[in-house]
Formats: sequence, structure tokens, C-alpha cells
Amino acid sequence: MVDISESKNFKEASAECDDIVDPWIVSSTSDNGVNYEKLIERFGCSHIDDELIERLEKVAGRPVHALIRRKIFFSHRDLHTLLKAVESGKKFYLYTGRGPSSDSMHLGHLIPFIVTKWLQETFDVPLVIQLTDDEKTLWKNLTVEQSMKMARENAKDIIAMGFDIDKTFIFSNLDFMGRCSAFYQNIIRIQKCVTFNQVKGIFGFGDSDIIGKIGFPAAQAAPAFSTTFPFIFGKDKLPVLIPCAIDQDPYFRMTRDVSPRLGFPKPALIHSSFFPALQGAKTKMSASDANSAIFLTDTPKQIKTKINKHAFSGGKQTLEEHREFGGNTDVDVSFQLLRFFLYDDDELERIRVAYTKGELLSGEIKKIAIDTLQPIVSDHQAKRKEVTDEILEKFMTPRKLNYDLIIKISK
Amino acid sequence: MVDISESKNFKEASAECDDIVDPWIVSSTSDNGVNYEKLIERFGCSHIDDELIERLEKVAGRPVHALIRRKIFFSHRDLHTLLKAVESGKKFYLYTGRGPSSDSMHLGHLIPFIVTKWLQETFDVPLVIQLTDDEKTLWKNLTVEQSMKMARENAKDIIAMGFDIDKTFIFSNLDFMGRCSAFYQNIIRIQKCVTFNQVKGIFGFGDSDIIGKIGFPAAQAAPAFSTTFPFIFGKDKLPVLIPCAIDQDPYFRMTRDVSPRLGFPKPALIHSSFFPALQGAKTKMSASDANSAIFLTDTPKQIKTKINKHAFSGGKQTLEEHREFGGNTDVDVSFQLLRFFLYDDDELERIRVAYTKGELLSGEIKKIAIDTLQPIVSDHQAKRKEVTDEILEKFMTPRKLNYDLIIKISK
Repeated sequence: MVDISESKNFKEASAECDDIVDPWIVSSTSDNGVNYEKLIERFGCSHIDDELIERLEKVAGRPVHALIRRKIFFSHRDLHTLLKAVESGKKFYLYTGRGPSSDSMHLGHLIPFIVTKWLQETFDVPLVIQLTDDEKTLWKNLTVEQSMKMARENAKDIIAMGFDIDKTFIFSNLDFMGRCSAFYQNIIRIQKCVTFNQVKGIFGFGDSDIIGKIGFPAAQAAPAFSTTFPFIFGKDKLPVLIPCAIDQDPYFRMTRDVSPRLGFPKPALIHSSFFPALQGAKTKMSASDANSAIFLTDTPKQIKTKINKHAFSGGKQTLEEHREFGGNTDVDVSFQLLRFFLYDDDELERIRVAYTKGELLSGEIKKIAIDTLQPIVSDHQAKRKEVTDEILEKFMTPRKLNYDLIIKISK
Repeated sequence: MVDISESKNFKEASAECDDIVDPWIVSSTSDNGVNYEKLIERFGCSHIDDELIERLEKVAGRPVHALIRRKIFFSHRDLHTLLKAVESGKKFYLYTGRGPSSDSMHLGHLIPFIVTKWLQETFDVPLVIQLTDDEKTLWKNLTVEQSMKMARENAKDIIAMGFDIDKTFIFSNLDFMGRCSAFYQNIIRIQKCVTFNQVKGIFGFGDSDIIGKIGFPAAQAAPAFSTTFPFIFGKDKLPVLIPCAIDQDPYFRMTRDVSPRLGFPKPALIHSSFFPALQGAKTKMSASDANSAIFLTDTPKQIKTKINKHAFSGGKQTLEEHREFGGNTDVDVSFQLLRFFLYDDDELERIRVAYTKGELLSGEIKKIAIDTLQPIVSDHQAKRKEVTDEILEKFMTPRKLNYDLIIKISK
């Protein structure tokens, strides 16, 4: 049916790798976490290298965000093609999302949104954010009502990050499906192009899986087609850029296989690496394990306790050893937290060198992490309080967005 | 996952029968058509017997429609349970539908609607009619736009049959999905209860089938749950009666398996036998084969030509043989057409006896069929002309319906 080259390449390469990375499980046997080099090879995507960053900065007219500069966003698909289109004066839109499986988001959930926000501000483009409450109902022990409630709570956290209300549409699938038939119509078009064999290969579904899971990937694919939002884009088929964590790539490999058949450009992607659990990079921070994550609802005291108690240390066993041999920043979770959230490059490098040399102790690097994260979380909480139900409603209402499309929208 | 007893019984019995009866194929090796006795056994449904008809007439307070009296509606599920509820003063609603695969409907398509209309008038209940344009897009070589157009054309034919605009809601899935989130929410609830193994067993889906087909049965199941229509029923969980051709039963076996898990009564069903193709009862009348069917758009002349040329005759080869041995009304398509559309029992019996005795010739019974059907089709065409776009819009707009529910709707 579809050109399955991208999905097929993935299947053939996956046998060689120990790490498990799919939309539902991320785990590695190594203390350093997932081997991203191998993952790029296995998934068939491309490195974000210095040359690409340089080009991105040229087109953007400003330095890239630290998360890109530090290659925490490490991989991409077709970003060159997208930048070429931008250079020739073409507009695009941004699409990202989240699966709302808990009322409170954690720090790791912010990563794709931080870079998405930077991209929106830099390129002045519309943004659609999907909350897959249908997915969570299907995969978790959650009712429709519970998932929808979580979607709204998560939307408030996302709004608190400062997205532009005039350029951003946030939607929950279980709500938006009933407000715009174009969404379901595109889902049917996608579901007509993909066989069970294909989703079996891409997602590992089996015969005893529920039919909701088997059909769901089309719901995550649909927003990559601009006609899903006629109230924003009319009938225009716009290119899209999707910032997401690498575990979401299977959905978009499938989407990219379908795109040409539906007459759309293949979506471009940039992939982030995982935000480590406090216990170390073998798994990612998880909302279902309270001790693995720093939540956006945590108090300064909780943050302090969690980091002091649970953050895996790359330091040595004794003070003497540490002073002599130094700590390992590659596995030290406090240092990793700073890589994600301390955006002063010189300061970060100073910390890295001092910790590696043994000048900075485990307790000291933990304190720096605590001092860095406490105000970020408190500031978020203050901004979240300002997100009224009225603001939430506006973000979640299908409506025209206010932005300049250089290409003309045909009605 | 679900209690699959109804679906499982079906699988075990189906190996013993030559007839193929599923939502996509109806075919029999016998000139008499499908063996309905065996079908009832295989599907695990029940006969509509004289005792049930008597009870139905008692509750209805009037004679049953000829199509029920003649046992063209020959089978049911849980009609006794439904009648018991009605006797105790409880209301229900009716649900039927159609897959719009051509702009024009044929005579056979009218059968479930004729009895549905009788039931609506008799019990004064609301009716929902589903047009599965999503199904047709998935199964046929039709685009979303083509299927939606056919759905609207078919809706006009259905409206022309005289359904009460204040008590009837007609919807196309590709349109209604975007107008009421309760529909998608119920689909997700259903899709969470059914595995691929189950739809494989019920519908014969395989690994190379598209994922749209695998998920679709939930879209046909959802209207059997009254909460799919909150604008009509509020949050009430009402019993439903589904009149349909027997080939649609697999969808509702699946629905009945799911119902208890979602807290709904199992839908009751009455099944019609198939309307024969002009060429004989081995297959049913098909919209994709122009010569097999009398369309609602046919002219009197076309009807005459089709019946004279194509209607399979149960008469003998020569006039002499026919006079001596008589014709066979069981296989004679003209007589079968009269069974479906000539509602004067005495007259039908007179024709049957005369034809069986050889007093009535093949050409003569064809003439009676032509004379019976021509005015029915012409009358339909006249009524269809009166269906304006405005009337169509009203029928297809989600809205309150005007009927008395004895049980109170809780909001």
C-alpha cells in the first residue's frame, strides 16, 4: 500500500540494538542511557551537525536555543528541506503534542515545548499542540472523562510556558474530534493507506491488541496534514516541522510514508534525547513514578529532597577518591539536569571542569542543580496560576490564528 | 476482553454452511437463495414465530406490517426483552442505517426502512439513521468527498419515504463525527473492549487489511448506545431496536458483546432476508450491477424492460408444460418482488395459487410485478423531488427530537 521504506529500514536494524525505544517504553542497559548514535542508524534519521546548526542560525537570524546548540536535540528528518523552503520565502507550521497520563507534568515534558516555543518566536509561525487523551484512554487504566480532565490540566501547564495565544491552537482529541470533521476525514484517509502488517512492524502491535490501539496512529499523524485545521489553513497543504522526543518517531515514520499518497510534503522533524530519571539515564523521567521525576507542582523543599535523595551521582565513593579522580558528568544526573536547564554555557563548562577534576563535590553539584531548578519550577507555578479557564478555552477553541502567511491561503 | 459468546458461537457453526453472508458478500449456491434456517442456527439468533408476532401486535395495538407478517423479517435478537420493557411503560429508540455506495438506491434498500417507519409510527419513538460514508471510503474506490456526496443523495431517498422530521435524525459519519464529540468518545470506549483477534473472528479481517477497516466496526456499533446522541437522549442509557438486513448482524453481535461492559442494555434486533437480484436469489440486488436491480431513479419503461428481460422466471419452458405443471413461486423473482411490495394478502395468495397451478403465465406475473412497482417508484420520485436542501439540512442537524419519553431524561 504505502511506500514503507522508512518503516522497513527501522525493522531490519532494530534487532542489533539492546535499547528499547518506542512510544511506550524507553530503557537502556547502559548507565550512560540510550545509545543515540545507534538509534539514529536504526531509525534512519540524521544527525543535527554543526553545519546544520550554522544554517539554522543563518535562516533564523539568531543563535539557536541552548537545547539545540548542546545537541540535546540531536537528530532530524528533512530539516534541510524545510530550511530551503523557508529561505525561498515559504511559511510552515509547527506541530507537537503530549499524552496526558497525569494531572501534573514533570520537567522532562517541558523539553520539546521549550524548543517549540523558540521556533515559534523565531519564525513567527502558527503552532498546533495535540493532547492525545484518546491514546491514554486506550493504553492506560483511564476513563474518557479522566483522560480529558488530564488533557485540560496539562494544557494549562503548556500555556504557562508562554505560548502566543494568537498563534497557538491546543486541542484534545476526544474534544476536538467533535468540533471539526476535517480531523476525522483525514484520519480515514490515513487509515486507508496503512495496513495492520505495517503498524505491526512499526509499533509491534499483535493480534490480542485492542482495535483502538491499531487505529490510533492515524490520529497522531493527522495534525501533520494542514487540512486537518481548515479554520487556520483553509485548504492549503503547508509543510510542517515537528519537534518531539525521539520515542515519538515511529508515528512520524508512518506519517511520512503516507504523506506523498495524500499529496502532502513529508513532515520535517527534530528529535530530542530523553530527560533522565533521577535514578539515572537507564530510563526516562516518568510521571507514573513520583520519585523518578521533578514535577511542575513540586515545592522547593520537595525538589531539594528529591535531588539530594534520588539524583544519581557520578561522584566517587569517598571524598578522597573524588578529590583525586573527579566525578563523571556523563552519568551524574544533577549535571544532566543542568545541561537541560542552565543556559549559561560558560557557567556550565566551569561546573563540568570543576566536577571532572574533583574540585566540585557531589553535594555541591546537587546544590547547584537545586538552586537552578527551584526558581524555574516556582516561576512556572506562578505563571500557571494566571492561566484562567477563559484563557484555556480560547487556546482550545478552533479559530483563525493571527500570523502572516506569505503564501496565499486558498479558500 | 469482552464476553465473546455470541461471536464465538457464530465462528464454530459457520464451517457447516455453504452460503456466504457477511456485511460485504451475500451468495448462495441454491436457486432458493440463502438457507435462512441454517443462518439462524449459525448466527445464534431466533425465529420470529407466530407467538412473537401475536405479542408484537398486542403491544403495538395494530396488525404488524406485511413484511413482518410474511416473515421477510424472519429473525430477531431479544425482541421479547424489548417488548417486555415496552409493556412496562419504558421507551426505546430505533437505529438503522445504510452504506452509501451509489448515488441511487434500489428497491431492496427500502426494505429495512419500510419496517423502521412502521415501527416509528406504531411506537412513537425517536429514530437515528446512520450513513456509513466512512465505511464506503475505506472499502470502495471512493474518496471522502464522493462518499459524503452519496450519503446526502441517499438521505434524500430515505427522507422521501416519509419519516417524521421531528422524530428522526439522519447523519453521515464523516460529517457528524465533527459535530458531536460523544460519538468519537463512545467509539474509543468500544474500541477499548474489542481485540484484533475478535474482529478477525467476526468479520474475517486479516493482517494485510487496512487499519481503517479494523477500527470501523466501532463506528457502526456506537449509535446503538444512546449517549452517542446527547442532544436527543441526554445521559440516559435507553434500549434500542435495530431493524436491518441479516448481513449486518456481525456488527451487532460485536455490539451486544460490548454492551454490558459499557453499562448498556444489549441492542434488540430484527433481521430481514435479502431482496433477490433480478437474476435470482443466489445473490442479493446490488447497486453496483445495474441489471441486477430496479433503482429508485428508473423510469417506468426501464422497470418494464428490466423485469421482462432479466427477472428470473419460475415458469416452465413451454406454454404446454407451464399449463400442465405450473410455475415455482419460490424461485420466481417477479413473485418474490410482489411478496416484498404487494401488501394485499388475498391478492398475493390468488396470484400464488394461479401461478402454481399454471393458470397464470410467466409474462402475466411479470406484468403484475411491473404494474405494482412502476407506481411505487414513480411515487417515490415525486416525493423525493419535494425533499429540498433545507429539509435535508434539518434532518441531518444534531438537535432535540420531539417525542414523549415516559422515563425522565436526566441531564
